[in-house]
Amino acid sequence: MTIYDWHTGPYPARVRIALGELGLQAQVRFVSIDLWKGKHKTPAFLAKNYSGTLPVLELDDDTLIAECTAITQYLDALNGKPVLTGTTPLQQGVIHMMSKRAEIELLDAVSVYFHHATPGLGPDVELYQNEEWGLRQRDKAVRGMRYFDGVLQHRAFVAGDTFSMADITVIGGLIFAELVGLAVPAECKALLDWYARMQERPSVRNRITMSEPAEAAA
Amino acid sequence: MTIYDWHTGPYPARVRIALGELGLQAQVRFVSIDLWKGKHKTPAFLAKNYSGTLPVLELDDDTLIAECTAITQYLDALNGKPVLTGTTPLQQGVIHMMSKRAEIELLDAVSVYFHHATPGLGPDVELYQNEEWGLRQRDKAVRGMRYFDGVLQHRAFVAGDTFSMADITVIGGLIFAELVGLAVPAECKALLDWYARMQERPSVRNRITMSEPAEAAA
Ligand SMILES: N[C@@H](CCC(=O)N[C@@H](CS)C(=O)NCC(=O)O)C(=O)O
Ligand SMILES: N[C@@H](CCC(=O)N[C@@H](CS)C(=O)NCC(=O)O)C(=O)O
Repeated sequence: MTIYDWHTGPYPARVRIALGELGLQAQVRFVSIDLWKGKHKTPAFLAKNYSGTLPVLELDDDTLIAECTAITQYLDALNGKPVLTGTTPLQQGVIHMMSKRAEIELLDAVSVYFHHATPGLGPDVELYQNEEWGLRQRDKAVRGMRYFDGVLQHRAFVAGDTFSMADITVIGGLIFAELVGLAVPAECKALLDWYARMQERPSVRNRITMSEPAEAAA
Repeated sequence: MTIYDWHTGPYPARVRIALGELGLQAQVRFVSIDLWKGKHKTPAFLAKNYSGTLPVLELDDDTLIAECTAITQYLDALNGKPVLTGTTPLQQGVIHMMSKRAEIELLDAVSVYFHHATPGLGPDVELYQNEEWGLRQRDKAVRGMRYFDGVLQHRAFVAGDTFSMADITVIGGLIFAELVGLAVPAECKALLDWYARMQERPSVRNRITMSEPAEAAA
């Protein structure tokens, strides 16, 4: 299978971490789409993903799967023993809820801030910006950090007592926050402690270099 | 189980349609949260769903599941024979992708238009509006209709050849579009034909009256 992504992107990081957790990285060929040159908005790429975002998974039969949640769901189901998206209905529901909440309240909010209230990917790519909206989303993201801090005061992981897709989505949010210089409030100790633990996971540590061998081989 | 929702709401419709498809409506007690009075933003309700949106599912052990996608995933998994979210990894991936795309490109876009560039739920509830952003999202939603029209020119259903969660999400988008007076372009014949077929489904037709017996019994 092929993954179109950009090695340092926070959404691509979600799928790379999932691949690492599942031990699937060797089965993937990575193809770089240069975000900074707007290559995700070319007609050729929009034909792969109407929304013009990375990452996109392409299967050997040419099926295209965009959206981190969908890609993670697919990869996690592959061997019939899901470890990231839950096995019981309850786990599945709670993991999907917390992952979606992490998008809405943190990751997507940071992304809108980046694209609308900072230079983003630069003037050639950011053809429309709404600064006021971007700044509101920045504030929402910081509130989101406080919310997840509260969650992690009571649980070891975002959706319960095991690592899941929901942790990956919050990690994506904090990776993006770091890239745009949005600090986690120092009083969010539970969130910061959890994040320090997450960064010890090989899947998180090795996510950027993951694509190198395959790129070199290509 | 209890569902907190509002009978005419487009997101609540998604879960009501899922319940109808799964034949689970008799197992649910509906509790109305009056959107027009902002009851979804009270501290009591925010404690149930941090994001302050409907619907929310509450299980008999008090577990709370917000987010239509997560609730649908939970309900569909309950009897071990999913019919809305796919059974193979490929189906699961494609259904999640198309449902998410229907949110991003249609349903959520209409929602932002409603809340930001129309009176929305009224001045007591809409405490901040960004009209320019709302109007852009309206235009995005209309482009989204054209995209789904293209999809439905080649397939009987949004994610393939069977009805799924992805159809439900597009239905939610068109329900919301209708509520805000945003017409599907007449040339989107495949989308309009599909929508006419969808409205014949009992789950879609009966979604609003679904809550009445339970409310009366409560
Ligand atoms: N909803 C998408 C969002 C993906 C996304 O926004 N990816 C970023 C890369 S980190 C992107 O493509 N941004 C480019 C843009 O929005 O112009 C997902 O979950 O996969
Ligand atoms: N992402 C949520 C969105 C739900 C949503 O926006 N629901 C509407 C009701 S139709 C709502 O609560 N709107 C109130 C508001 O945003 O103020 C989901 O998929 O469940």
